[in-house]
Amino acid sequence: MDITWSNFKKQLPVVCQAIAEADFLAIDGEFSGISDGPSFTTLTNSLDTPEERYEKLKAHSMEFLLFQFGLCTFKYDDVKAKYIIKSFNFYIFPRPFNRNSPDKKFVCQSSSIDFLANQGFDFNKVFRDGIPYLNQEEERLLRDQQEEKRYHTNGASTTCYMYISPDASRAPVVPVIPDDQKDFIDKIVESVDEFLKDEEKKVLQLEPCTGYQRKLIYQTMNWKFPRGTHVETVESPNNERRMIITKVDEDERKNKEIQKKVKEQEDLNNAVGFSRVIQAISSSSKLVVGHNMMLDIMHTIHQFYCQLPNDLEEFKSLTNCVFPRVLDTKLMASTQPFKAIISHTVLAELEKRLQMPPFNPPKVESAEGFPSYDTAVGQLHEAGYDAYITGLCFITMADYLGSFLSPPQTHVSVQSDVISPFFNKLFLMRITDIPYLNLDGPDLLPTRDNVLHVTFPKEWKASDLYQLFSAFGKIQVSWIDDTSAFVTLTQTDQVQIAVNISRFAESYCVQKYAEYVAKKDRQSLS
Amino acid sequence: MDITWSNFKKQLPVVCQAIAEADFLAIDGEFSGISDGPSFTTLTNSLDTPEERYEKLKAHSMEFLLFQFGLCTFKYDDVKAKYIIKSFNFYIFPRPFNRNSPDKKFVCQSSSIDFLANQGFDFNKVFRDGIPYLNQEEERLLRDQQEEKRYHTNGASTTCYMYISPDASRAPVVPVIPDDQKDFIDKIVESVDEFLKDEEKKVLQLEPCTGYQRKLIYQTMNWKFPRGTHVETVESPNNERRMIITKVDEDERKNKEIQKKVKEQEDLNNAVGFSRVIQAISSSSKLVVGHNMMLDIMHTIHQFYCQLPNDLEEFKSLTNCVFPRVLDTKLMASTQPFKAIISHTVLAELEKRLQMPPFNPPKVESAEGFPSYDTAVGQLHEAGYDAYITGLCFITMADYLGSFLSPPQTHVSVQSDVISPFFNKLFLMRITDIPYLNLDGPDLLPTRDNVLHVTFPKEWKASDLYQLFSAFGKIQVSWIDDTSAFVTLTQTDQVQIAVNISRFAESYCVQKYAEYVAKKDRQSLS
Ligand SMILES: Nc1nc2c(ncn2[C@@H]2O[C@H](COP(=O)(O)OP(=O)(O)O)[C@@H](O)[C@H]2O)c(=O)[nH]1
Ligand SMILES: Nc1nc2c(ncn2[C@@H]2O[C@H](COP(=O)(O)OP(=O)(O)O)[C@@H](O)[C@H]2O)c(=O)[nH]1
Repeated sequence: MDITWSNFKKQLPVVCQAIAEADFLAIDGEFSGISDGPSFTTLTNSLDTPEERYEKLKAHSMEFLLFQFGLCTFKYDDVKAKYIIKSFNFYIFPRPFNRNSPDKKFVCQSSSIDFLANQGFDFNKVFRDGIPYLNQEEERLLRDQQEEKRYHTNGASTTCYMYISPDASRAPVVPVIPDDQKDFIDKIVESVDEFLKDEEKKVLQLEPCTGYQRKLIYQTMNWKFPRGTHVETVESPNNERRMIITKVDEDERKNKEIQKKVKEQEDLNNAVGFSRVIQAISSSSKLVVGHNMMLDIMHTIHQFYCQLPNDLEEFKSLTNCVFPRVLDTKLMASTQPFKAIISHTVLAELEKRLQMPPFNPPKVESAEGFPSYDTAVGQLHEAGYDAYITGLCFITMADYLGSFLSPPQTHVSVQSDVISPFFNKLFLMRITDIPYLNLDGPDLLPTRDNVLHVTFPKEWKASDLYQLFSAFGKIQVSWIDDTSAFVTLTQTDQVQIAVNISRFAESYCVQKYAEYVAKKDRQSLS
Repeated sequence: MDITWSNFKKQLPVVCQAIAEADFLAIDGEFSGISDGPSFTTLTNSLDTPEERYEKLKAHSMEFLLFQFGLCTFKYDDVKAKYIIKSFNFYIFPRPFNRNSPDKKFVCQSSSIDFLANQGFDFNKVFRDGIPYLNQEEERLLRDQQEEKRYHTNGASTTCYMYISPDASRAPVVPVIPDDQKDFIDKIVESVDEFLKDEEKKVLQLEPCTGYQRKLIYQTMNWKFPRGTHVETVESPNNERRMIITKVDEDERKNKEIQKKVKEQEDLNNAVGFSRVIQAISSSSKLVVGHNMMLDIMHTIHQFYCQLPNDLEEFKSLTNCVFPRVLDTKLMASTQPFKAIISHTVLAELEKRLQMPPFNPPKVESAEGFPSYDTAVGQLHEAGYDAYITGLCFITMADYLGSFLSPPQTHVSVQSDVISPFFNKLFLMRITDIPYLNLDGPDLLPTRDNVLHVTFPKEWKASDLYQLFSAFGKIQVSWIDDTSAFVTLTQTDQVQIAVNISRFAESYCVQKYAEYVAKKDRQSLS
């Protein structure tokens, strides 16, 4: 089901209901770009440490926009012996909700945009009808601003402030009117005096003026006419702001205040928008399944919660708070017993593989009122569909694990012990010697004692490196940038020899991996 | 007429023809954003120098994308006594044309996107079907790469290189094959040997391999089998690259070479894409009319020609090269005799004003086959329409100038002396005391000897400044940032007094404008 700003408010309860009743949730995000670095390859060196990988993704990927979010909820129906799914495809855009709202900027990468365009992605739905959102800090700020305003309008004073500075004193004070504004303000006061005397008139509309003058008028009204009037600024369709002063009795005043409060509450809810969905997912504490989900998690937290911490350990705790239990199907498929029988873990290929023996995909049916997906046609790279496929891969692999139990189980529930080993471990793209990012504790750290760090002139090509190390047999080169690379030797005992030989070299420089790491750590500390 | 990638090649001759026959051209651009600074106000301080303004726009606006370009050509028909117009609305997107093409990134600003969305802007047309482009440097690079390739395939060798390093030696050399690739390459050589002996076979398809291995194969083929074969890499729909070796005689070889050359030329033309239109405008030397066109010119040069220079004077020469003659209708409308009778110069309001006496808009008709615009309905903020309106404003104001001639002229041509005073002067947003940016020479520099530069704690508000200078009568505040501002006094002789008084102050600091500028210049020199 496509969810845009047009149907968001109506469908939000449906989404929350689906989350609440689900056994688990599958998610997927589409982004306006992946990497602002020279290339994704450089962003994902095969000998990155988990810290380095996290830092690189944080530095080079977070300025892109997560603009489509797929959610597919899975609930097992014991009677029918099948999963009932509800799939949602959210279009997301940081629409400015009023003139004080943050004017967010985001980067687009042509290759990503082009890729999505070729998949038939509907950019108009995003930009014309995307759901807005606020992160927690922005939500708090907006709420504080509203409280502050309300404080000023409570009690006797009926004035409402358009401009509230955080340090504004809390009781109406004699406003300071600059000399060149005195005439202007005096005239306003005069006209309000007249208006209040004129029993025929209920409403006084002031001439348009500058924001600064409006602020002075609010302060003056608050001080000179604390009772019996209501002051507000209305915006005309051509963006002209005019102040309107209305005579009110106590009931009318209260009424206007309540109306205002309701309106403010609604504005706040509108502005928080899609973040409500993430909050619902988070507070449900349900298992969240994704495919290669490191970037999805990082973007989700960054966009809807808060700036990402610099430190990987802090990121892990934060992720544990937001998504207490996650499972990465790419990691699952790359781990035994699946690793031995699954050769390609790209989502589309994984799905195909899992349709064949020894696997046996469980039955899945779309809930009533939800359009059903046809896996034969495929709509890959619509986030809602990708989320569905991800969930499907998960339950197929889970059920396969059930076949090893005694007695064998055809349906494995999310609570089963056979699944828990895969919880809270994220797949690390292209890192060959660290199996996963461990969200529940420290990461496994390989010694890498057969790895050399080499620096060289940028004219060098791969062949120069192969030639340089030709005496040491088969080597593997992992480029860092155009003047350095890691070189992995087959035999650890040759590392020292390579370092020794390099002492006489002038054009290049070789050090052991451990030395390189130690030097880097010292640099980052100083 | 909407021009996207689908009809670009077919319509390009129509566009070029329209440019060639026109009396003048009107242009307009739509961007994915305006300012990455805190606000547009900060970007355009009313006391900026032209240099500062240029530097700010360059620093804070060029990362956005010009993604719609409007061109409206105007040609006067003496017989009909009306203008015949052709209006084009180009959708532009840096689509990657092959895997080696630059993967461009650009920023979107929510407020700008939201504004365009509300105008019904079609983002799908941009992202799915936008016309690609290259700047001159990228075009040159691509051309050089193709020449380089051709050099290698000319003469005896029939090998074509996929990977050419700029420093690759120009004659086929014995390739250096790293130890771990020797087996692989030996096997390839063996299979080619067999293939060449087998008279039945015309084509040999190799197994997929890595880019590095392909490079080695090209080098080996070039060296071992310089004659009688043609080697190429083809990409399958699933992005798999395979090498194909074909037996060829000399005629076939030549044929394949010609085919290849034609294909390469076409690829290059495709990649240059929309830049061809700008090149056609530029080399026509026709008068180019725009409304508030500083950003349009900067973006056009930046995107389709080259990086903008740091220096304003260099920017002026560059603009003179690309657009030898420009006219800014906002500047024209803000200059006498128009200034006295036109109060609002925003495009839509200017157009409305120019429909009333003393103005008399000339007759305009869309050329055959071009959809006609109805100004009554209005489609503002489609670039093609805005370009049309801009041209309309220009000819209406031009004809008005004709009424002052003796004898009065009802039609004023682009060559007329009454227009030339407005050439090559750009409107400077919100700068009150410099009339325009002069593209044909140095700018007018006001002394600003009634202006003070003030620094203060960031807690200060406008009222603090008004209070501080209350002794000096009416003042005007131009914020620089939250700890500094320019304060303009009414009387020049009070500037020294204000500076003297400030010597005793601790919380704020005041200096004369000239001192501030001198200090800034010294800083930028050192
Ligand atoms: N000096 C040098 N640097 C290279 C070479 N190949 C790759 N690099 C560097 O390593 C980075 C990653 O290269 P690679 O892993 O091949 O990924 P790619 O950038 O996607 O082609 C590149 O951006 C270059 O900076 C080479 O042959 N010579
Ligand atoms: N300290 C201080 N700074 C201000 C105040 N008003 C504006 N500024 C600064 O001046 C900049 C430009 O303000 P303004 O011209 O009002 O444009 P705006 O940012 O679009 O509202 C702001 O971004 C602030 O940094 C104020 O009352 N006090």
